[in-house]
Amino acid sequence: MRTLRIAMAQMNPTVGDLSGNLRRMTTWLRDARKANADLIVFPELAITGSPPEDLLLQSQFVAENARVLNEIAKACRGVVAVVGYVRQGDPRDARSSRPSIRSAGQQTLYNAAAVIADRTVVASYGKWHLSNHGVGDESRYFLPGRRLPMLLINGTTIGVTIGDDGWLPEGPTRAYAAAGAEIIVTIDAAPFQVGNSRAREQMLATIAREQGVIVAYANMVGGQDELVFDGNSVMLDQAGKVIVRGHAFEEELLLADVKVEAGSRGRMAYGLKSARPRSAVSAVDRVMVKGTAIIKKKRTRIVPKIAEPLEEIEAVYRALVLAVKDYVRKNGFTRVVIGVSGGVDSAVTAAIAVDALGAEHVLGIFMPSPYTSRESEEDVVELARCLRIDVQTIPIAPTFDAYRRALAPSFVDCAEDATEENLQARIRGNLLMAVSNKFGHLVLTTGNKSEMSVGYSTLYGDMAGGFAVIKDVPKTMVYELSKFRNGLGPSPVIPKRTLDRPPTAELRPNQKDEDSLPPYAVLDPILRAYVEEDRSLADIVEAGFDRATVSRVIRMVDVSEFKRRQAPIGVKITHRAFGKDRRMPITNGYRIKPE
Amino acid sequence: MRTLRIAMAQMNPTVGDLSGNLRRMTTWLRDARKANADLIVFPELAITGSPPEDLLLQSQFVAENARVLNEIAKACRGVVAVVGYVRQGDPRDARSSRPSIRSAGQQTLYNAAAVIADRTVVASYGKWHLSNHGVGDESRYFLPGRRLPMLLINGTTIGVTIGDDGWLPEGPTRAYAAAGAEIIVTIDAAPFQVGNSRAREQMLATIAREQGVIVAYANMVGGQDELVFDGNSVMLDQAGKVIVRGHAFEEELLLADVKVEAGSRGRMAYGLKSARPRSAVSAVDRVMVKGTAIIKKKRTRIVPKIAEPLEEIEAVYRALVLAVKDYVRKNGFTRVVIGVSGGVDSAVTAAIAVDALGAEHVLGIFMPSPYTSRESEEDVVELARCLRIDVQTIPIAPTFDAYRRALAPSFVDCAEDATEENLQARIRGNLLMAVSNKFGHLVLTTGNKSEMSVGYSTLYGDMAGGFAVIKDVPKTMVYELSKFRNGLGPSPVIPKRTLDRPPTAELRPNQKDEDSLPPYAVLDPILRAYVEEDRSLADIVEAGFDRATVSRVIRMVDVSEFKRRQAPIGVKITHRAFGKDRRMPITNGYRIKPE
Repeated sequence: MRTLRIAMAQMNPTVGDLSGNLRRMTTWLRDARKANADLIVFPELAITGSPPEDLLLQSQFVAENARVLNEIAKACRGVVAVVGYVRQGDPRDARSSRPSIRSAGQQTLYNAAAVIADRTVVASYGKWHLSNHGVGDESRYFLPGRRLPMLLINGTTIGVTIGDDGWLPEGPTRAYAAAGAEIIVTIDAAPFQVGNSRAREQMLATIAREQGVIVAYANMVGGQDELVFDGNSVMLDQAGKVIVRGHAFEEELLLADVKVEAGSRGRMAYGLKSARPRSAVSAVDRVMVKGTAIIKKKRTRIVPKIAEPLEEIEAVYRALVLAVKDYVRKNGFTRVVIGVSGGVDSAVTAAIAVDALGAEHVLGIFMPSPYTSRESEEDVVELARCLRIDVQTIPIAPTFDAYRRALAPSFVDCAEDATEENLQARIRGNLLMAVSNKFGHLVLTTGNKSEMSVGYSTLYGDMAGGFAVIKDVPKTMVYELSKFRNGLGPSPVIPKRTLDRPPTAELRPNQKDEDSLPPYAVLDPILRAYVEEDRSLADIVEAGFDRATVSRVIRMVDVSEFKRRQAPIGVKITHRAFGKDRRMPITNGYRIKPE
Repeated sequence: MRTLRIAMAQMNPTVGDLSGNLRRMTTWLRDARKANADLIVFPELAITGSPPEDLLLQSQFVAENARVLNEIAKACRGVVAVVGYVRQGDPRDARSSRPSIRSAGQQTLYNAAAVIADRTVVASYGKWHLSNHGVGDESRYFLPGRRLPMLLINGTTIGVTIGDDGWLPEGPTRAYAAAGAEIIVTIDAAPFQVGNSRAREQMLATIAREQGVIVAYANMVGGQDELVFDGNSVMLDQAGKVIVRGHAFEEELLLADVKVEAGSRGRMAYGLKSARPRSAVSAVDRVMVKGTAIIKKKRTRIVPKIAEPLEEIEAVYRALVLAVKDYVRKNGFTRVVIGVSGGVDSAVTAAIAVDALGAEHVLGIFMPSPYTSRESEEDVVELARCLRIDVQTIPIAPTFDAYRRALAPSFVDCAEDATEENLQARIRGNLLMAVSNKFGHLVLTTGNKSEMSVGYSTLYGDMAGGFAVIKDVPKTMVYELSKFRNGLGPSPVIPKRTLDRPPTAELRPNQKDEDSLPPYAVLDPILRAYVEEDRSLADIVEAGFDRATVSRVIRMVDVSEFKRRQAPIGVKITHRAFGKDRRMPITNGYRIKPE
């Protein structure tokens, strides 16, 4: 029985901040060495942050990433490290030839994992299965790898993979196992999505059991533009049982001692008795990690931490809090400003901001119009009291009148319509932006996914701002989040009446959302089927919805693409968010047949 | 000597408008039959329009595209047709296996060219070299093809390819030629980019000469969101000489008789004497197109048209005109509204709009502030007179005062700064949007690429609108376009003084662009090197620019990414436009070292 002490750095890098990420990594390295770890594992693209996008087309950026890898190697004494980085390589290394390499500025790049031992990069694995679905654009930058470097560290065999490679049935894990690997190390940068971390862990457990390997899975954590990485790093034994599990949405170093049985696997390692295709197995390079100066000090026993997985709604809430915190911090802001209306969307956005930044860093602006109800005003006051945030009031009526007078000569004989509603929303947008410009606060917008889907929002109005916190949260889930948050503290932070009143934009007398939209309990499942699952009209009707309603909703989604294209970025939490995740043409003549 | 009459439909489809595209294609088919053509060639993705983007994830859309192909086949009598469409296929057809097919909604899709003969799809070619650079996301949707269907039509051998496949040295053209192809048909949807059509034609000529084949290259034409396809379809003989060339930016049916020598090629066809790799040649499927009911009627001789290639600046101007025309038309607008300031950007935008839509469909709004000069007002009047457009004047001072009063309690003790400048720009944006909302006009924005690059623009202000006409045109080229347009007519349309006065935003007294920016003659080449060519600071300095200036410009570009992400789409004309062509993170810690 051999024991290997593995450290996994569930790290929160910043895209592009190579020197900051280096500092962070050397700190982890020191901590791992202090803990007498044999191996430390960093997430996918830990050096550059993820996703680095078109920074990869700048050859200087790629060169600096390589220099940072060398710095890390120099700092890497007494412990073997697996480090996610970008490798500039020889195109002959590619698994499948791609004749025309015109991407990445004529460079040949791999999404790679370096293995560092004794201050030297002794092996490098290039990701096999590049992701080109959802938010992934990996073929824009990378070639698929083809080699499988298998490490022999103090008699234990370890295979290294990246992302989906770690669990895909056709992935390299089976080839490694067939060639005798006892431990599979998978590094990842997997963004949060409702339900995903549980599914991922199940796939890893299946691979561990099926292949009889120990799995060490290190995921990134932290917010980056539209994405928030959830952590949930995990180690599993050969039975698929969890040895250690990281906390979701927290940066931490996870430590565990894994036990490898002598014998059974050892024989296979050189016998290659597996039924794996010869071609896959032949790609395995054995790398003897020798002279690593791993000194088996007398180690105190570690009791590995197994964090409880979060319930779904808590996970969403925590994802949004971390996303706001990181967007604000990584972009150099210290304070945010939010238009608070007395409605649930702005209330939950404010609560998330307070949890992310502290009440003193959140400013509310209440901008009543003549259509604003007394209840809304009272609920804003109550929200401010509960969250302990400063709220300023700026009435919009005089500015609205000024616009109407300016436009009167152009609008002769025109009836009032949505134009006047949009004007009010845009005055509010301008006021928020003015406060933002004057004081350097970031404007958080408050629109939810249901509104964004059907275009029930005003471009440059309520859509004006830098970061759209609940953009991917359907209205029905906004209520769930509110109830979850109210259940946390000693007393509710979102006023009860805000949750009980019917939603309204208050842009004309007695307006209610349901005057223009189906009830959210009907709208949200239709939107989910159409936007997230690409279901057809017939499919959705078959699931039990009114044909005319479904048809109308689909049409509303399709014609409001131009608005979404100019929306601020926001946090992806579902299978398909608006943004890089959903790329629809604006000019689009496709009309789903109503029958 | 055999003669084949080839028709190429340089077609302008609308993305998603399957029935409209079908109607258009059946008309071309009828015309080709009337002209006694043996073969008609439609562009890449002619049925769906290009690029269909995430419509491809909707399986119903893909199924309807297949039904349209069947409709076209039914209409296809007496002529063989090559038609671009989306093929749903068997994953075993793929050239390289891609184990995890999670894109395109679990579908297996190919960017394909169907060959139709005698009302039947007799062969289908799947594009080999998928484009994942620039604006291309093909691996998100498609698998690479692997088969090479070679047609034998009345004794002539023809190979079919798509896009880059047609000229890449490692592409299928050589395999076809080695297997005896006499004609290579390449269908494409290649967007306009300065200088590209000439380079493309040279590559096609090289392939024609090197491989001794006739090349028939059919490109798409028309505007689609950020792209404008330029046409410039061409046929070249075995010496690389142009037989027929389509007009740029016009929809048309091109006809030519191509002459194939008997003998020489025929021997090779079955001898396979070439040095081509056996693997490539083995992928060639010979498809005998028999019973096509091609009746060799007595045909009148055709004098093929050879359109003159356009000069660069004319090509850009024409690209912008077509892009505006198609965006307006395909999105169901009839009229546009433009904020005219007396400056050159709004003047050239208005001229392009007038050329695209006619003066009666263009409305100008002049929105003077107290900082607006008398010259600006006079130049607006002169522009309106020259272009014969209606211009309304809406002063912004009273609305600006209303905002300042509303914000006074929040801005106690604050000095005036960019906030007040942005407010003015945003009032103008709101007024334009109000006119747009009230009358259904599309707002065209007027910002140029130099401004967009360095963030010298106001989000929700001058950036507010639906389509950004000159977004990818550097300021120095805006002047060239103006001079070009002024040289066209009997008298200039853009007032001479507008071209002579130093550019100014007129948002504070005596403001000039050069107070904030380097002169455009310096700024534009730096931007080109950094934004379009990914050159490093050191490279750009080496090219002869001041280090501090370059460093400042790079920094301005990097920190204004958040603005560009919310900008309206505009027309790509350069090697790299902002939009889908350049995907930079907003949260970006990368700082190019100043030394």
